[in-house]
Amino acid sequence: MRTVVIGANARAKAIADALDPVSGLVVVCVEDYSSIPDLPAGVDIVNLTSGTSFDAVQAAQRFPDRYLDGALMAHPEHVGLPETVLVYSGSAEVFARHEQTLAQLGSAIYLGPDPGTASLYDAAMLNFAWATLIGYLQTAALLDVEAKTFTPLLTQWLKSTVVDVIEDYAGQIDAGRYPGDEEWLELDEPLMRHLIAATEQRGLDSGLPRLIQSLTARGIAAGHGRESFASLVNVIRAGQTS
Amino acid sequence: MRTVVIGANARAKAIADALDPVSGLVVVCVEDYSSIPDLPAGVDIVNLTSGTSFDAVQAAQRFPDRYLDGALMAHPEHVGLPETVLVYSGSAEVFARHEQTLAQLGSAIYLGPDPGTASLYDAAMLNFAWATLIGYLQTAALLDVEAKTFTPLLTQWLKSTVVDVIEDYAGQIDAGRYPGDEEWLELDEPLMRHLIAATEQRGLDSGLPRLIQSLTARGIAAGHGRESFASLVNVIRAGQTS
Repeated sequence: MRTVVIGANARAKAIADALDPVSGLVVVCVEDYSSIPDLPAGVDIVNLTSGTSFDAVQAAQRFPDRYLDGALMAHPEHVGLPETVLVYSGSAEVFARHEQTLAQLGSAIYLGPDPGTASLYDAAMLNFAWATLIGYLQTAALLDVEAKTFTPLLTQWLKSTVVDVIEDYAGQIDAGRYPGDEEWLELDEPLMRHLIAATEQRGLDSGLPRLIQSLTARGIAAGHGRESFASLVNVIRAGQTS
Repeated sequence: MRTVVIGANARAKAIADALDPVSGLVVVCVEDYSSIPDLPAGVDIVNLTSGTSFDAVQAAQRFPDRYLDGALMAHPEHVGLPETVLVYSGSAEVFARHEQTLAQLGSAIYLGPDPGTASLYDAAMLNFAWATLIGYLQTAALLDVEAKTFTPLLTQWLKSTVVDVIEDYAGQIDAGRYPGDEEWLELDEPLMRHLIAATEQRGLDSGLPRLIQSLTARGIAAGHGRESFASLVNVIRAGQTS
């Protein structure tokens, strides 16, 4: 079983070792929420275990007024680095009391009093990573040459052009306006059909390009053909699972 | 109709203007491949029009020994910047004769004599961008707060952690080995089910998280549960569209 219990200042294997007698804080990261042990009264709890927002809300009810839920936005090996981000939500008092200690794990961002928010961020960030990574694997399968030949091109492009596009899309989403000045759904959709054809001609799984084309076609059908790809946020919001 | 014809040294609206009498080169970027006009004998052609690899092979047959297919890996507005990448495939002689001129459009990468390769790269890069961007839109819909509050966190994470993971995956793909030291499919899959639940509880389209979970479940069923997420390249290669 992967169980790591981290005390306020050091890794520890048992709950007793994890208790910091000065700060009165225990940081817990266990297999799942049902594995969180009972803890002495008066101790503050920061829980980094992965779970749903519902799990976090239940845990907050179990430890009223002393529970802070957290999520690590990086691989476990990067805990302790300043560029590593951890998000927290739940008791503002617990966060304020232990902010200095939590800063030792990485940059600490407090997201508000709802204990479920950190878990939601965790899921949302994982979604973003998985989408990017499955896109990378699909591209690798499609190109079918040594990955080291094209990967620098992809990562360079990701860090420059794609990041610029994301920042542009953030502004469009917040404004609720999706001007198709650079690209628009009716321009993209035929290219998506090229991509599906190229994928299937090579005998590869086309679930990812088909999903993207399907969301785009739904955007066009809803009258957004001259709007940017960012307008698909409204197709996603409308539900009716693909 | 969006028709842009770019001469060797300047944008031009008519084919005559696009001909550079010194270099004997015309750079064409039109609505689709069927819009490529007849061109005088002896002129080299670099075609930046978006299309399939099959389109490119046909165009190369139409202009034997003087055809180079190209694809712009950026938005059109970035043409001419040194960090903008264009890939080319087809006649090595045409590329060699005009490499200096093409460098004015951006960094020029020659991918080999098959005229279809540049189009394949184009489709593969678009696939990668769309996957990342649809992931971003899905994450924005899930978080449902102002995009400017979480987007810097996402882009920072993309440029650091996610790029590191991609570079690691490139090595795994080339080695054909996918060690699950950091994360593995059986660890990921329950988190994906959390993500689907969080998505559907909010009434959002869950096509993207369901696709990711489905590919992962197929990887586990194929015996790769202890391998990294990168092992899903083999699920994609195996076809049987999701």
